[in-house]
Amino acid sequence: MGALRLPSLSLLRPTFSPLRRLPPLSVGRAATHSLAKEAEAATAGDGKASVSSSQQENSVTPRSVDFSAWYLDVIANAELADYGPVRGTMVIRPYGYAIWEAIQDYLNVKFKETGHSNMYFPQFIPYSFIEKEASHVEGFSPELAVVTIGGGKELEEKLVVRPTSETIVNHMFTQWIHSYRDLPLMVNQWANVTRWEMRTKPFVRTLEFLWQEGHTAHATFDEAEKEALQMINVYKDFAYEQAAIPVITGRKSKVETFAGAACTYTIEAMMGDKRALQAGTSHNLGQNFSRAFGTQFMDENGHRQHVWQTSWAISTRFVGGIIMTHGDDTGLMLPPRIAPIQVVIVPIWKKSDERTSILEAVATVHNILKEAGIRVKVDDSEQRTPGWKYNFWEMKGVPLRIEIGPRDVTNKSVVVSRRDVPGKPGKEFGVSMEASTLVNHVKLRLEEIQAALLQRAISFRDSNIVDVNSYGELKEAIAEGKWARGPWSASDTEELKVKEETSATIRCFPFEQPEGEKKCFMTGKPAEEVAIFAKSY
Amino acid sequence: MGALRLPSLSLLRPTFSPLRRLPPLSVGRAATHSLAKEAEAATAGDGKASVSSSQQENSVTPRSVDFSAWYLDVIANAELADYGPVRGTMVIRPYGYAIWEAIQDYLNVKFKETGHSNMYFPQFIPYSFIEKEASHVEGFSPELAVVTIGGGKELEEKLVVRPTSETIVNHMFTQWIHSYRDLPLMVNQWANVTRWEMRTKPFVRTLEFLWQEGHTAHATFDEAEKEALQMINVYKDFAYEQAAIPVITGRKSKVETFAGAACTYTIEAMMGDKRALQAGTSHNLGQNFSRAFGTQFMDENGHRQHVWQTSWAISTRFVGGIIMTHGDDTGLMLPPRIAPIQVVIVPIWKKSDERTSILEAVATVHNILKEAGIRVKVDDSEQRTPGWKYNFWEMKGVPLRIEIGPRDVTNKSVVVSRRDVPGKPGKEFGVSMEASTLVNHVKLRLEEIQAALLQRAISFRDSNIVDVNSYGELKEAIAEGKWARGPWSASDTEELKVKEETSATIRCFPFEQPEGEKKCFMTGKPAEEVAIFAKSY
Repeated sequence: MGALRLPSLSLLRPTFSPLRRLPPLSVGRAATHSLAKEAEAATAGDGKASVSSSQQENSVTPRSVDFSAWYLDVIANAELADYGPVRGTMVIRPYGYAIWEAIQDYLNVKFKETGHSNMYFPQFIPYSFIEKEASHVEGFSPELAVVTIGGGKELEEKLVVRPTSETIVNHMFTQWIHSYRDLPLMVNQWANVTRWEMRTKPFVRTLEFLWQEGHTAHATFDEAEKEALQMINVYKDFAYEQAAIPVITGRKSKVETFAGAACTYTIEAMMGDKRALQAGTSHNLGQNFSRAFGTQFMDENGHRQHVWQTSWAISTRFVGGIIMTHGDDTGLMLPPRIAPIQVVIVPIWKKSDERTSILEAVATVHNILKEAGIRVKVDDSEQRTPGWKYNFWEMKGVPLRIEIGPRDVTNKSVVVSRRDVPGKPGKEFGVSMEASTLVNHVKLRLEEIQAALLQRAISFRDSNIVDVNSYGELKEAIAEGKWARGPWSASDTEELKVKEETSATIRCFPFEQPEGEKKCFMTGKPAEEVAIFAKSY
Repeated sequence: MGALRLPSLSLLRPTFSPLRRLPPLSVGRAATHSLAKEAEAATAGDGKASVSSSQQENSVTPRSVDFSAWYLDVIANAELADYGPVRGTMVIRPYGYAIWEAIQDYLNVKFKETGHSNMYFPQFIPYSFIEKEASHVEGFSPELAVVTIGGGKELEEKLVVRPTSETIVNHMFTQWIHSYRDLPLMVNQWANVTRWEMRTKPFVRTLEFLWQEGHTAHATFDEAEKEALQMINVYKDFAYEQAAIPVITGRKSKVETFAGAACTYTIEAMMGDKRALQAGTSHNLGQNFSRAFGTQFMDENGHRQHVWQTSWAISTRFVGGIIMTHGDDTGLMLPPRIAPIQVVIVPIWKKSDERTSILEAVATVHNILKEAGIRVKVDDSEQRTPGWKYNFWEMKGVPLRIEIGPRDVTNKSVVVSRRDVPGKPGKEFGVSMEASTLVNHVKLRLEEIQAALLQRAISFRDSNIVDVNSYGELKEAIAEGKWARGPWSASDTEELKVKEETSATIRCFPFEQPEGEKKCFMTGKPAEEVAIFAKSY
């Protein structure tokens, strides 16, 4: 089974690889089995846990050495995803999918609370639809996957596999909307989408990905604007409160606006390598699609008007954002609120006569935490040492570990270790096993970790944004890998010039703006806003 | 707006229509808006409810006159789905999707309880994969949608849009499974699938549909068999307990077995027109795919063996099954446990001075029921009469209606009406508004309705299955539209002859078998089992 000891996965980076079929990202032989078990967070270990022979030997590439290699190593070792057989596609493995489910669970509730209903639109879109909105077809046509054969026959009209659904949504909205009484119409779908990307990277940019796309229609511009802003704020709140990612919220430049939108709002996250990740967008579509598709309503005065629309989306890319925000050289680090497993319990015994009493204590603690609604897993496999298990669950980013050994059983206590604080400082000995004490302790620690991850990310972000007042300063900041923030009122051409010369783009005009008069750092002319420039994924 | 008064939708039946683009199934102009609101079951009415001008005029075709027309009318009038722009595709509207979500919510929990983890496989499958398993390619190749263009270029290898995922699953399993310790491997995905069907019908058979597909790998045949049976029983329990559909569980004949399976188990439901609907299947795949894809493991003795596998699926077709099992001439009728709205509250006032006190009482009752976890909706729109609302919510199959008028407010009571018992017998006057009394009353009634729907469906099913002892008797039963049950041990050829001559197929060899010796009704030879024959969807 020596063949299983794979070379460092950094060699297999798909982003720059022309290979059609890549070797698997998966590491070790028993990875999947253990995962299939893990995602049922509340199930006790079954004594057959992971026996991944190469797991431990394949430590990840240090983040500081090669961030991209580190990222792929973590995805492989933490068993988040694997390559699909078709270039650029990704298999989302159970542990990675469980993170996506945590994202879904939170957002789905928020979407419903804010008045949206889930529904489902077909993924095949007549090619002619895509062509109806001019900038939309320009933006998407290079990325389309096209079905030309169905049921063994060449199709009369080619079908596009949805890259996004505005066109088919408007086709249906046009049939459903007649009067102002039909508005607002507010729907969402959880779906897969396909964009024929040439440079792919698991989670961040894949040929097919999962997302939700909200689509709404309103009677006025103001209502649509309010909705677009409401939804970018739902995303922002999710990022901060659940994922502990301190995104910067703002408006895209015209150049960076979604193909077909009047205005795009975005949440931009700073990854561990300081690149920006566009982590969610909300578009005020204006009347662009309603004009293209004739989506009209009769207003209260009997006049026919085109509806005002929004669309907004967040995707499995966000999982990549979580990995690249919090992960370290030890592996993944998950914020407790979205961690599929919040606490892993590792029993420790040497002599077989200790085994029974320790496993009893483990079962008790497991039940106490489970009853309290904590997502807890026991790793009582006998094929691995406690040390191996520590590394394994640290790699998987589980926020808290509870260790129970012979002395703990005697003292009716446990040892609690934090994933985010390495070594001794992160360990607490003698935490009482008494139910309410233990539950309170664990809940408090989980909240502390949640807050600590956010605080750490905020500090990192803020120490890597540089205020610039000249193009020279911007170049310098970007060359250092940082984000540059400065007043901007220059032209699209100049924006593209910055991109060409520095690889940085305007990530957004942030909603939070400094007070006072501003002069564009490029032209010296008055500027109303600062923009943030950065290299991005 | 006279154009909105559509002709009967029976004229638009897609099943036999060569039309590429069909007129919308949707009825009336304000339908969608009201739906977008409804699916958030706990939200109070916003005074802008449905003003669908044609809703009431478009009563449905009586079920007894034309079942298929009735079915389409109900889907349109209850706002469950609409046609997509591509032939054979369907838009699942919020109210229909909410039923699918109820199915998902229940099954997702059961899948996890039985040890399965969710994950996601890409939908694009290299064409060569499909060809690896001989009977699989034979079964699916006529139904494939094929992507030949990606990113503006002709692809080297054509990609199949998944019709089912066994091939890509095995491709990945082969990389993940090495030792007996990796088994069992038990995963599931919620996904869309595409089958190029020529005769489509909303929910029942569409070009694209939503489903879940479970995939498992085991070390032994027995384990796989146990798993396949476990999952068909999960489906059966769901059908009985949640959907109130008394399915018959059994084994498919060889002719009807899934393309690539060793054995297929099925739940077969009798629709209101007595046709059978295959409502869920679970396959013991044997080693067919593991041999085709080389999915092997090292057993405890160091021998390499092919894994034993299962797959199992339930789809949006099940929503069609719910409609066709319980619906009546008044419209949809939903079992309370899966109804997106369990109780609708309709205020009744004539004089404006009654309005305030009635709306106060409505709000109180709404809160009481909502707090108790009942999915309740208030319809306080002022554009419609109470009578119109009664019809509207009956069409949508809401199990219970609560009416609150001036006299009720005085008496601190409400009127409760059952959807499943028409007219006076289904109405109870003077039900106390006192919180615990009301909650208990409503919960009891909902459980009664749940049980009554199941009981009615059982009676209907049992009175329409005929035991036959000759081919003549079978022909007679089938000609009457009934199901025929009789001993069968004849050949595949004879099975196909029955199909050709009567249009009936073997739905299953039911698990519940009569005792005693049996002789095949076709050949007179000894038979081990009875089979059930029926015409099916």
